[in-house]
Amino acid sequence: MRAVCTVCEKVHYENPKMVVGCLVEHNSKVLLCKRKIQPSYGLWTLPAGFMEVGESAAEGAARETFEEACADVEVISPFAQLDIPLIGQSYIIFRAKLKNPHFAPGPESLECALFGFDEIPFDSLAFSSVLVTLQMYIEDVRAGKLRSHYCTITKKPGASPSDTMGFIMSNHLCV
Amino acid sequence: MRAVCTVCEKVHYENPKMVVGCLVEHNSKVLLCKRKIQPSYGLWTLPAGFMEVGESAAEGAARETFEEACADVEVISPFAQLDIPLIGQSYIIFRAKLKNPHFAPGPESLECALFGFDEIPFDSLAFSSVLVTLQMYIEDVRAGKLRSHYCTITKKPGASPSDTMGFIMSNHLCV
Repeated sequence: MRAVCTVCEKVHYENPKMVVGCLVEHNSKVLLCKRKIQPSYGLWTLPAGFMEVGESAAEGAARETFEEACADVEVISPFAQLDIPLIGQSYIIFRAKLKNPHFAPGPESLECALFGFDEIPFDSLAFSSVLVTLQMYIEDVRAGKLRSHYCTITKKPGASPSDTMGFIMSNHLCV
Repeated sequence: MRAVCTVCEKVHYENPKMVVGCLVEHNSKVLLCKRKIQPSYGLWTLPAGFMEVGESAAEGAARETFEEACADVEVISPFAQLDIPLIGQSYIIFRAKLKNPHFAPGPESLECALFGFDEIPFDSLAFSSVLVTLQMYIEDVRAGKLRSHYCTITKKPGASPSDTMGFIMSNHLCV
């Protein structure tokens, strides 16, 4: 796909963007952040954001977790890659643990909290990718086997951008 | 990191680029392609290339395998993510199998061939990422357990770009 600069009309190649984040586990709970920015203001997300040149995906995931939840984490293992081809994004989510039990909302979060599986606000999640990641994680924990997942997420035709459940998951592969 | 258009000086954000490819297994051998293009002309690589907007990583990996080796493959599972922060690249490699036993060099390959583990041309590989992926794969097969890997590859200070063994691997995590 080609993107032409709106100012000078030079062609700039557009590549898919990597969104890197952490699924932070602590005492059988997971860390979520309530967004203080659009899109999905006021809804809950995993700490995640665009990976930058010069950092690894694991470093980027830990950086985003520090920025959004003031949490110092150690990345434990790869957990999921979720591609969203229609918007050219690829989510790379790592399992991580808190190096110390401190966290607090960063400038882009209204609130941060740990949720047990039965407490997760599934009707107030920010993105389909967060919903899919949490569902895979809960399924793995309940099965007693944490795996590494890959899948594609496609918005259902006609589903609104804010409908986090209006998607089709396909090509689910795991190890 | 910021990139400014050389023509109009508008700022364009640079994001890491995803390189997607396949480790194609067939009768206990792996498929390699001898490069007909620079860099690393004449050296052996896994079929891989830049992921495009509008496709998933798995689709991109299969597309590159078809373009470079005229091989029609089915992606089986995620295998490795290898980040190279210094050049802003992230390799995403999937295990795949041939849908039929046909392959041939595409326009960017001089030759394509299946190699048993003892036949792999380790002194004529195109990139450090190919070397690391093959080493991880052979280790997993010999241990009888195929895993999903994540790691960072950093060029050793002073190593030439063509020295595929002049690297440090760190943050190796696997599931």
